[in-house]
Amino acid sequence: MLRAPVDDEVRRQADDHHARLTKPPGSLGRLEALGAQLAAIAGRCPPPVPAPVAIAVFAGDHGVHAQGVSSWPQEVTAQMAANFLAGGAAINVLARHLGAAVAVVDVGIASSVAVPGTIRRSLEGGGLSRDPVWLDRRIRAGTSDLSIGPAMSTAEAQAALDIGVDVATQLAHAGARLLVTGDMGIANTTPAAALIAAYTGTDALAVTGRGAGIDGPTFGRKAKLVAQAAARVASLPHGPLGILAEVGGFEHAALAGYIIGAAGAGVPVVADGVIALSAVLAAEALSPGVKNWVIAGHRSSEPGATAALEHLGMQPILDLGLRLGEGSGAALAVPIVQAAALVMAEMATFDDAGVDRSPPEL
Amino acid sequence: MLRAPVDDEVRRQADDHHARLTKPPGSLGRLEALGAQLAAIAGRCPPPVPAPVAIAVFAGDHGVHAQGVSSWPQEVTAQMAANFLAGGAAINVLARHLGAAVAVVDVGIASSVAVPGTIRRSLEGGGLSRDPVWLDRRIRAGTSDLSIGPAMSTAEAQAALDIGVDVATQLAHAGARLLVTGDMGIANTTPAAALIAAYTGTDALAVTGRGAGIDGPTFGRKAKLVAQAAARVASLPHGPLGILAEVGGFEHAALAGYIIGAAGAGVPVVADGVIALSAVLAAEALSPGVKNWVIAGHRSSEPGATAALEHLGMQPILDLGLRLGEGSGAALAVPIVQAAALVMAEMATFDDAGVDRSPPEL
Repeated sequence: MLRAPVDDEVRRQADDHHARLTKPPGSLGRLEALGAQLAAIAGRCPPPVPAPVAIAVFAGDHGVHAQGVSSWPQEVTAQMAANFLAGGAAINVLARHLGAAVAVVDVGIASSVAVPGTIRRSLEGGGLSRDPVWLDRRIRAGTSDLSIGPAMSTAEAQAALDIGVDVATQLAHAGARLLVTGDMGIANTTPAAALIAAYTGTDALAVTGRGAGIDGPTFGRKAKLVAQAAARVASLPHGPLGILAEVGGFEHAALAGYIIGAAGAGVPVVADGVIALSAVLAAEALSPGVKNWVIAGHRSSEPGATAALEHLGMQPILDLGLRLGEGSGAALAVPIVQAAALVMAEMATFDDAGVDRSPPEL
Repeated sequence: MLRAPVDDEVRRQADDHHARLTKPPGSLGRLEALGAQLAAIAGRCPPPVPAPVAIAVFAGDHGVHAQGVSSWPQEVTAQMAANFLAGGAAINVLARHLGAAVAVVDVGIASSVAVPGTIRRSLEGGGLSRDPVWLDRRIRAGTSDLSIGPAMSTAEAQAALDIGVDVATQLAHAGARLLVTGDMGIANTTPAAALIAAYTGTDALAVTGRGAGIDGPTFGRKAKLVAQAAARVASLPHGPLGILAEVGGFEHAALAGYIIGAAGAGVPVVADGVIALSAVLAAEALSPGVKNWVIAGHRSSEPGATAALEHLGMQPILDLGLRLGEGSGAALAVPIVQAAALVMAEMATFDDAGVDRSPPEL
């Protein structure tokens, strides 16, 4: 059982604290709710500033790629994993901007990845390093085709969950005080859409998007396939794990575990776009209440992201039309999450600063 | 005449550059448009990373406060100016988060400000310092009551504009490569609403908000007063400077000059909320094209902000329900502005990273 992070006493303290700071009441808008969430998670007010930051990018391939749901060759998953290790991807740039550590986790890439010999291959012992770390936790060289049958066995889905929990736990142990979700996998918006349709009951067409860029006929194929997969799931007596195995992906399952692991370690986790949000839905179904540790970093332009956010009752920090994945939207939101804690820790109170308050009746 | 920052050649280069980076085309959403704007401003692609950052907080008081349009005592303007110098306000916390310099500029505070002897009182010679700088450029101890007659003479409005230009120029000379607008002034949303109504032709009721928190009767008084002021301006043969003098404030005019000065120095400027956006409208009216150097940091919850953004054709980076002023919303957006330049400078290209592209027909 998770300790409930929404501690009414701490939340009341956070509200009182915000009211004493030298600003009109409520004038920091959503930053105040974010600060109260951080206080509730930490169990103290003001909350500690959530740093250092670690980003785990879970990478996997998808059997459903064979159905022509993506315009990108499957090899790009492995090529981008190598790019993450070389520091050349968007998430690397954003991680350096934050001083964040990056762990690239192969949970099911189909092709071989060129891993330089200089790359660290473990989170043990070294603390959080600035150079990307490679974790070879490949379960299988890509899932099975979810349009034909289960993408994973339940044992495989559980293995991916366990990897995610383990990575989050190790990153927290190494000192991370804020985790960011990252993902890479050509065709992975297809299982994300199927998971969102299955967990939320939303119509498949309403959660299917154009992913990394597809034409009309490809979109039609993808939407039909997502609808069929969601209908198949609905017809089976699956629990939360069964749904994840039936139409998910290795990185989706690992991310669900990562979120559960973050909550278990008492560390807030910033969720990225549609892949991450499908994983939050899975995590919440598996471990109700875990979403209280999650901060929605941004609203991806993929329609499934909005359906998931609504179902979860979450308002994202950013809405910049991103649809890159890798954790990019979540990473962009991190300075704002940290600012929410910083204002609570560092702003003067009315009494300390000798500033008059607005009349109390207002 | 301003050099046109929207250089079609540089913008084409920025688009080509984004297309070569290892990500699906367009997948960084609004970050790509922001990067192209920075490239156009700098006249080169990729653009330099906009750092270091300087924030000027222009502070003034308002004769219209006598009409009971705010629930806060007028002395709070001076008290908050002292709080800025002591480092205890929200903008100080956010500035430290960014490593940004803060200059507090008295352009028309009504009360005396307790300025500690240790505070620097000039931007000359010292470069950008981490400690707040105090600039005593007080034009008068608050404007006249804009509900009765002109808030300022045109000479005073011009003096405030000149101060803003000078501060931006000096900050750029001291090394700032990104400027942020800041403001403080009890009752200053009233002149902001009047300016927005006057410059955009929007109905006064639609641009009047509850500022730092007012009750229903106060709001009714404020809205009526803004409508009367806007109607008076419309009946007079005022040009852009006359409008600014008639219903503006010292900090609004100084901010308009600051924006013009930033553009003149070739430095992008991030605009904060409703006060800043009323100043962008004034600056654009005085110096058409200057808005190309402006990045809208956020959408304040004050309704006038949205009216101004629409009139200017700007989309803000953040929309977090902030209504604090001081530059807080703009400061929160700065890491995202910097990220837009960083991805252009540091991401690998498809060719460099050996990553396959999506088929060219898509």
